[in-house]
Amino acid sequence: MTSTLPAPRDSEAKLQHILVHSAQIFADQGFEGASIREISRATGVSLSGLYYYFESKQKLLYLIQLNAFTLIMERVQARLASVREPKMRLRTLVQNHIEYFLSHPNEMKVLSHEEEALEPPYRDEIAAIKRRYYTLAREIFEALSGGAPLVGELSPRVAVLSLFGMMNWIYKWHNPKVDPSAEQLSETMIGIFLHGVLRGLAEERMLSAAGARLAPSD
Amino acid sequence: MTSTLPAPRDSEAKLQHILVHSAQIFADQGFEGASIREISRATGVSLSGLYYYFESKQKLLYLIQLNAFTLIMERVQARLASVREPKMRLRTLVQNHIEYFLSHPNEMKVLSHEEEALEPPYRDEIAAIKRRYYTLAREIFEALSGGAPLVGELSPRVAVLSLFGMMNWIYKWHNPKVDPSAEQLSETMIGIFLHGVLRGLAEERMLSAAGARLAPSD
Repeated sequence: MTSTLPAPRDSEAKLQHILVHSAQIFADQGFEGASIREISRATGVSLSGLYYYFESKQKLLYLIQLNAFTLIMERVQARLASVREPKMRLRTLVQNHIEYFLSHPNEMKVLSHEEEALEPPYRDEIAAIKRRYYTLAREIFEALSGGAPLVGELSPRVAVLSLFGMMNWIYKWHNPKVDPSAEQLSETMIGIFLHGVLRGLAEERMLSAAGARLAPSD
Repeated sequence: MTSTLPAPRDSEAKLQHILVHSAQIFADQGFEGASIREISRATGVSLSGLYYYFESKQKLLYLIQLNAFTLIMERVQARLASVREPKMRLRTLVQNHIEYFLSHPNEMKVLSHEEEALEPPYRDEIAAIKRRYYTLAREIFEALSGGAPLVGELSPRVAVLSLFGMMNWIYKWHNPKVDPSAEQLSETMIGIFLHGVLRGLAEERMLSAAGARLAPSD
């Protein structure tokens, strides 16, 4: 529109506008295939106007990922502040994750699919945020067992990453016309995961108490 | 090596050699970024030699995906032929999937990550194989409920795609140096999923028998 610097107040709104449209282009065409020229066309912001916000496609991809993860983290932390019960805390994390993803399908795809397209130093910074998010999920998960150390075959790392796998794979198949809403989807996934994991934990506790081998139940 | 046509018997071995090395290059650099020239260098097969097997990078990506899915399908069908019990059938499918993936990390990444890079008509052909695989998984899943129709919130589609999400996300995080083997990983995932789903099914059956609302258990 203009090559003069936007006023600070408009600046943040304009950045959000650019990030939303860029995420859509990256989601449709892939990061490699997309050009800054197309982003200029889609956003109605001149090339020099875009340059005010980012000096490379790498920086733009970084800003999209940073913005998305910051929002996911801020929201989940705000929601968790009033939740103490471990199962409800895990449910809150799953709901927050799936709600964000289903209401931001382009960002969901860019986060899941264009992870490796990001180069250092941006990649390291995003990796650090992801690690904080993973650590939060893992702490919530470990609290499920009531502080007792997990034993046996149920690796907390594998369990938590399995949960993220269920959730992050959604971008490959979710069709809003036929598939459940965020609320129902969260309930199904937390249902499968919690029942699965708690049952597993209960069996493991019985086993470690009895020092016995796993009975061939189920 | 040579631009003369290889003999039929060598031909299949040479094709496999090309597919394995190409999958590695696609996994490392992404489909977009990889060049046929690099594939020629990595395989030791001349450009005209490669042309005997595929006339485009698209065709090569198709052959990698076709080859991988054909193998996964053939193996699981052979293993399922002697397994009748529904839970064991699901376990067999999961084991087969994870075993293939962990022993073919490059193909795993190309299958999971470069799905959309494939264009028609190749894309449609691969989509048809994937549909057959999904249908098989769904039939096995639906047999878990003993033929009774599934009711309530546990959508078979969501359940099966959640299971695939757990399994297919592995390519993002599995580090063979620290993470469990295919056997252990299969056991953990089938454990979470089966316990979660069967518990869900049991609750739903009680509910539909009683016509009651879900008690706030768990």
